[in-house]
Amino acid sequence: MNFVRPEIDALTGYVPGEQPTEAGVIKLNTNENPYPPSPAVLEALRERVGPGLRFYPHPSGAGLRRAVGEVYGVDPDAVFLGNGSDEILSLLIRTVVEPGDALAAPDPSYSLYPTLARINGARHIGVPFTADYRLPDAWPTARLTFLANPNSPSGTFLAPEEVAHFAGRIDGLLVVDEAYVDFADTDCMSLVQRCHNVVVVRTFSKSFSLAGLRLGFAVGPVELIEGMNKVKDSYNVNQLALAAGEAALASIDWMRENVTRIRKTRERLAAALREQGLFVYPSGANFVLVRVGPHAPDLQRALARRRVLVRYLDHSRTRDCLRVTIGTDTEADRFLEALSEEMG
Amino acid sequence: MNFVRPEIDALTGYVPGEQPTEAGVIKLNTNENPYPPSPAVLEALRERVGPGLRFYPHPSGAGLRRAVGEVYGVDPDAVFLGNGSDEILSLLIRTVVEPGDALAAPDPSYSLYPTLARINGARHIGVPFTADYRLPDAWPTARLTFLANPNSPSGTFLAPEEVAHFAGRIDGLLVVDEAYVDFADTDCMSLVQRCHNVVVVRTFSKSFSLAGLRLGFAVGPVELIEGMNKVKDSYNVNQLALAAGEAALASIDWMRENVTRIRKTRERLAAALREQGLFVYPSGANFVLVRVGPHAPDLQRALARRRVLVRYLDHSRTRDCLRVTIGTDTEADRFLEALSEEMG
Repeated sequence: MNFVRPEIDALTGYVPGEQPTEAGVIKLNTNENPYPPSPAVLEALRERVGPGLRFYPHPSGAGLRRAVGEVYGVDPDAVFLGNGSDEILSLLIRTVVEPGDALAAPDPSYSLYPTLARINGARHIGVPFTADYRLPDAWPTARLTFLANPNSPSGTFLAPEEVAHFAGRIDGLLVVDEAYVDFADTDCMSLVQRCHNVVVVRTFSKSFSLAGLRLGFAVGPVELIEGMNKVKDSYNVNQLALAAGEAALASIDWMRENVTRIRKTRERLAAALREQGLFVYPSGANFVLVRVGPHAPDLQRALARRRVLVRYLDHSRTRDCLRVTIGTDTEADRFLEALSEEMG
Repeated sequence: MNFVRPEIDALTGYVPGEQPTEAGVIKLNTNENPYPPSPAVLEALRERVGPGLRFYPHPSGAGLRRAVGEVYGVDPDAVFLGNGSDEILSLLIRTVVEPGDALAAPDPSYSLYPTLARINGARHIGVPFTADYRLPDAWPTARLTFLANPNSPSGTFLAPEEVAHFAGRIDGLLVVDEAYVDFADTDCMSLVQRCHNVVVVRTFSKSFSLAGLRLGFAVGPVELIEGMNKVKDSYNVNQLALAAGEAALASIDWMRENVTRIRKTRERLAAALREQGLFVYPSGANFVLVRVGPHAPDLQRALARRRVLVRYLDHSRTRDCLRVTIGTDTEADRFLEALSEEMG
């Protein structure tokens, strides 16, 4: 006897990028930061490792919510903390979307959105981006719209004014997923106050180099945050992640310096690829999407054999592309070398 | 405009026990372990705090699942890891229960069960325990039944044979929530192999002194675990929790010694309360439920003013009771002292 709901049973499930355990691999497939977390974070974690772990964490992470409030100039009661921003995306659906409701997102975008919709019994409507990855004129009625900005896998970025205009013309809640925004020139945080239907989601995984700790936050309308607090598990963020988050914000210059380095490598890598005659989408993220031609999946596998992992995403719009995380300059060089050897 | 689903909006939400930040409080309200985690756990955590935190954790925690398999004699593919056992309870519902389905649990039990049912659009059927906290003869048809064993708040324990018999006579999945089972004489782990409809849920929060890290596991039918893997967030358990879990199992004698100490204190505390003429439910957990009379809520507040926190649960069956976590002998004495001063 199988107890699993038929809808879940039929699901393929979201497939995360490979996490190899062997050494010597150039890992440019899951958009991790090539630089370590701030020394202040590591120190705070070491201090927190002790007998106090026997206690439950603060249920809503009051200390970290206050710190987020100060750094981003928002009301701590408008801040929600999650076990990674993926948990926040899932909780937003569970708080807002009724079974059968529609959930929309531009396409192609983060492939978790349609999976999350199906898990929660919602209909997912993917609305094609324009050819240059801008928002289409028509938008369906949906309880909730996900907008990854910068977008993945394209890396493209929409200006906050464009997003504000979009928020004004759609129905329902607009979730601006800013997982990669620290690598862009600006962000949509101020829209939370200007638009009644905008919630912004951030993560400590990418720019703060803390993917291993699972920590994200959302800033949105207070009554939405209150609703999410009712749906979340009582103690959804662990003590060490909370401590790391506070230390990461207190030493935010470390993150900014790493971002500056990554942006420099990104421009260098994009220029080198363009010099080889390849089309590279303009990126506001810590990765680039590069058009390599119809043999992209073979190329991805060939690079993997050379221990250079990049991501291939099987979608009509990205079928001739590879998504390459921005690592260190050395890693970028290793990728370029392997690529030119494979492409001949 | 409020985007929150009406069902969530109407919800009071589960209220976790108070987590005071001031020092000098005797905290016997949330069943935390009075003893620290194993030194091997703290060492493993300190070792793991480093540049590697920039990487995502293993999606399903293969290393820890293998360790669970070895220690508990189960197939690692039958093991699911969660961000605390609360996340596992929620994921079980989301994997198995359709909107409108019934979900049953004996009553009174863990007050999160009805909340989880409502959040997920299921109907919760609370079926009264018999007077001595055994299972009633009649059981409703339900997609999923939660059985906390030892039960909270009563602390009472049902023998595995009784649970096996119960599994055989009910419809649907039986979730045996063994959060407190390390403090009992035996457990239901072997039922997973004997009964096709049993899943056992455990936590590292109580006996392993790791409430702050959020780590739990489930052992159940492989196809159920596969379903849960599709519903969970890709990286639901953080790197440090995974490392702590492995170290905790590798040094499991530390946990067992603490459990022995806690059981001794439990028997001493129960005997002292009974000497005062109070009824104490027989406990297989790290807490006791003691009947103090109709002034129980006042007594709870009076004890709190003396900085001794215990739990009062507003339910017809526990309205004259206090639930007291087993702390150290010193904490138990402080509680007994404060109690006898208040009760005169």
